[in-house]
Amino acid sequence: TFSFQGKDIHYEVYGSGKTILLLNGILMSTLSWAEYIEPLSSGNRLILMDMLDQGQSAKMSGPYKQDIQADVVNALCEHLAVESLCVAGYSYGGKVALQFALKYPKRVERLVLFNSMAWTSPWIADIGESWNQAAKLDGKAFYLSTMPIIYSPHFYEVENKWLTDRQSWVLPVFDNPVFRAAITRLTDSGLGFDVRDRLSEITAPTLVVSGELDSLVPIAEQTLMASKISNSQHVILAGSGHGTMYEASLAFASLLYGFVNIPKVAYSHK
Amino acid sequence: TFSFQGKDIHYEVYGSGKTILLLNGILMSTLSWAEYIEPLSSGNRLILMDMLDQGQSAKMSGPYKQDIQADVVNALCEHLAVESLCVAGYSYGGKVALQFALKYPKRVERLVLFNSMAWTSPWIADIGESWNQAAKLDGKAFYLSTMPIIYSPHFYEVENKWLTDRQSWVLPVFDNPVFRAAITRLTDSGLGFDVRDRLSEITAPTLVVSGELDSLVPIAEQTLMASKISNSQHVILAGSGHGTMYEASLAFASLLYGFVNIPKVAYSHK
Amino acid sequence: TFSFQGKDIHYEVYGSGKTILLLNGILMSTLSWAEYIEPLSSGNRLILMDMLDQGQSAKMSGPYKQDIQADVVNALCEHLAVESLCVAGYSYGGKVALQFALKYPKRVERLVLFNSMAWTSPWIADIGESWNQAAKLDGKAFYLSTMPIIYSPHFYEVENKWLTDRQSWVLPVFDNPVFRAAITRLTDSGLGFDVRDRLSEITAPTLVVSGELDSLVPIAEQTLMASKISNSQHVILAGSGHGTMYEASLAFASLLYGFVNIPKVAYSHK
Amino acid sequence: TFSFQGKDIHYEVYGSGKTILLLNGILMSTLSWAEYIEPLSSGNRLILMDMLDQGQSAKMSGPYKQDIQADVVNALCEHLAVESLCVAGYSYGGKVALQFALKYPKRVERLVLFNSMAWTSPWIADIGESWNQAAKLDGKAFYLSTMPIIYSPHFYEVENKWLTDRQSWVLPVFDNPVFRAAITRLTDSGLGFDVRDRLSEITAPTLVVSGELDSLVPIAEQTLMASKISNSQHVILAGSGHGTMYEASLAFASLLYGFVNIPKVAYSHK
Repeated sequence: TFSFQGKDIHYEVYGSGKTILLLNGILMSTLSWAEYIEPLSSGNRLILMDMLDQGQSAKMSGPYKQDIQADVVNALCEHLAVESLCVAGYSYGGKVALQFALKYPKRVERLVLFNSMAWTSPWIADIGESWNQAAKLDGKAFYLSTMPIIYSPHFYEVENKWLTDRQSWVLPVFDNPVFRAAITRLTDSGLGFDVRDRLSEITAPTLVVSGELDSLVPIAEQTLMASKISNSQHVILAGSGHGTMYEASLAFASLLYGFVNIPKVAYSHK
Repeated sequence: TFSFQGKDIHYEVYGSGKTILLLNGILMSTLSWAEYIEPLSSGNRLILMDMLDQGQSAKMSGPYKQDIQADVVNALCEHLAVESLCVAGYSYGGKVALQFALKYPKRVERLVLFNSMAWTSPWIADIGESWNQAAKLDGKAFYLSTMPIIYSPHFYEVENKWLTDRQSWVLPVFDNPVFRAAITRLTDSGLGFDVRDRLSEITAPTLVVSGELDSLVPIAEQTLMASKISNSQHVILAGSGHGTMYEASLAFASLLYGFVNIPKVAYSHK
Repeated sequence: TFSFQGKDIHYEVYGSGKTILLLNGILMSTLSWAEYIEPLSSGNRLILMDMLDQGQSAKMSGPYKQDIQADVVNALCEHLAVESLCVAGYSYGGKVALQFALKYPKRVERLVLFNSMAWTSPWIADIGESWNQAAKLDGKAFYLSTMPIIYSPHFYEVENKWLTDRQSWVLPVFDNPVFRAAITRLTDSGLGFDVRDRLSEITAPTLVVSGELDSLVPIAEQTLMASKISNSQHVILAGSGHGTMYEASLAFASLLYGFVNIPKVAYSHK
Repeated sequence: TFSFQGKDIHYEVYGSGKTILLLNGILMSTLSWAEYIEPLSSGNRLILMDMLDQGQSAKMSGPYKQDIQADVVNALCEHLAVESLCVAGYSYGGKVALQFALKYPKRVERLVLFNSMAWTSPWIADIGESWNQAAKLDGKAFYLSTMPIIYSPHFYEVENKWLTDRQSWVLPVFDNPVFRAAITRLTDSGLGFDVRDRLSEITAPTLVVSGELDSLVPIAEQTLMASKISNSQHVILAGSGHGTMYEASLAFASLLYGFVNIPKVAYSHK
């Protein structure tokens, strides 16, 4: 734990080698990456972190803008005396990674954006507001407003048992009004976010990774984002929805591990 | 209006010629087709109908199964002494059209299925349940839980003014708890629906029409459905979400008008 | 037959009503539309035409630019005293239709572009040159260089018997060096074609129709084309390759029939 | 070099660590991987190999079946005393990798299939035959019959200078009738290949990698292949044609490096 503007920030460090920082999606915490710790910390230094209003980090008392999370990341770098690192962000964490790369470009060696987009469109703002409405009710309503749009229909069907089993610990978390209030603040913190016109400033080699059937972050937005980041490539995980880290975990981990560790970029073609 | 099992069913008939029956999506009523009446009744007899729990038809007092709506359609045919007709169903209406075609195959000359699927999957069942949860709150929550998933992000953005203007009459409808209770019954009436194994029984020439970016009815389900209906073709409206009748209205109308009226099917290839 | 700059142009007229002109793809002739004549001339006046170097029209003696074909179309309109009409072009014919719409905008009531694009890219120019090379050999080589890229792999597989049977009259045509020389001139006539910057001038309601798996005219080019024509809609024939008129004939005919005949355009949304 | 049935087989070994064998596409040789040697041999033992009729390996004197190449791979393993290894095959090399994995399953630790399919369909057989026809003419005709179908239209356009520059050494190679005769034998060696019904026998963790716009190996075939290999994942390189190793080289290398080296597979979901 370290302190950012008087708020405790929880982080975890595993292994040694080239540094990888994983930034959570909105409903996630450091706990969500449990299965990834061993593979990704083998030969690398892996950092997990709960952002403000996430997991074991401090809760906020009122509204804020998403870019404060980029400052948290920078403070963590200072705290750990990390000059530069590879940053991988998932969904909400990808937006924060974009903001971090724009505000602290020298810190970013390589950038991986999973299921992210470069602005909060009117459409996704209303999706977020529908989550906020459901959050007023209870954990079950919140679960139903978020989970089906996150997972692909196929995953939902074939992994029905896994999803049902997982409800035994997810629903109690969601039932906690403190958790739902934090998620609502996180959701609202993204309103107004728009760096579409600044993507050309990003010079770090960047990998954009999409789920083919992502119903939450439109693939068209990710294609556009990749086309505007000059040193980028765009990869699509076939058959996966928004939940790529669960729906296509082996490919997810392979892409991250390979992109971060491959010593030299082959060819000059984009 | 005619009576079905003691319930009033509202219908409208326009024009004369080959008969087209339009079956509403779940949130729609005969009013939703206003702009389509003139083009589709020119040279055709166009029938609009509110199903049970829709629009100006009677409300139900408890739960029921979706296939009752197919019996309503058959009763309307008897009432109007229509031997056979072309049936076009949109979303919920497409499921009813499928059930009608399977139960009363001689009545169906041609079948058009817009944004429909042949079963209620666990995934779409949970989407429906999330609507039911939002329906407990108010019209605004219900609007937010349904609209963004119906329209494509692009349409939502470029037609923001149209959507906002429309809220002036949509929100009051949604605010009515009687309306939301009826929609909840309609939603629940689809639970358990599954005719995937019976699609090969359908012999009427069938057109399956999808929105390329439909986030509510997965296009993979529509591809599968089309592949199992022997005399079918599958058309995708580029860039459109689930709301094809608004998002791609000219192509929507052209496909319907053309498929119903073209005198002879060219070639034997599927 | 009528005469254009001293060259005989073959055309055929069927039925009466709103006028539809079909413009052939490069390897086609009026004979190719045999199965479409009855459905499309029922309630419409249908005009088929062989362009210069096609079918029963005159052969050219040297190179020319594709836009001469647009002048042929205009001359046919004058010959038949047709003020304006609906023009549907397929592949090469779609490019001619675009040129006709830009040069003679008042003549075009509605425009349908099947499997077409707004320029001759370096890529498709080289595809064309590979056809020219094969044309130097014999009919079999020319068949093999053109047919697999035209039809989708699935169609090629399931309609193998139809394709094989058809070879009995296609191969003799392709074996004729006069035919292959004409196709080579037609192919070369498209070099330099580029109206991408003029698409916004087109005001006629336009339908862009693509085959989902078109390997010859990239769907991305058609998406771009549709996005630049203000009053357009874009429809994709699922599972079809470039050969939409054979691979998805019922949907092909329905779209054309419906788009041309529907009396009024529903809604103002694109 | 080692000897296989009296034929010299050229191979190259770089670095040390977990072993990766790269199997060439049909028009490739060990030289094609030049840019990949440094990144992929850093921390790994990288083996390149020319198959029979490729590069610096011996030419064959008559027709043969593709599975002989799998025996060549096995002989190389014996020659190098390699018990097991990771095999990555590209296009033709992917088909050989599949045959190797089926015939020598204990040798394969992990399998990567780039732009490959599990059979030689009638469609791709005719594409191959069109190459054979062009091979009868000269290097230019052969180039034109192969290159545009390999690269995506977009790559062809933006990398036009690279492609043109490369012609200075590619065209002389293609002009050599000995080379074209070898390619024709390689092409014909794939006729009759079909392991679609045996894919469930493959137990090695497998990564299927496709180019989104592959015009030569249909993505539908790759989706089907991935669905039948139980322990597989399917990744799509956005915007790339068949030439993924040039069109999306960084993602290509990252996927290969990551999938081979990641120590543990995260999660049990496919």
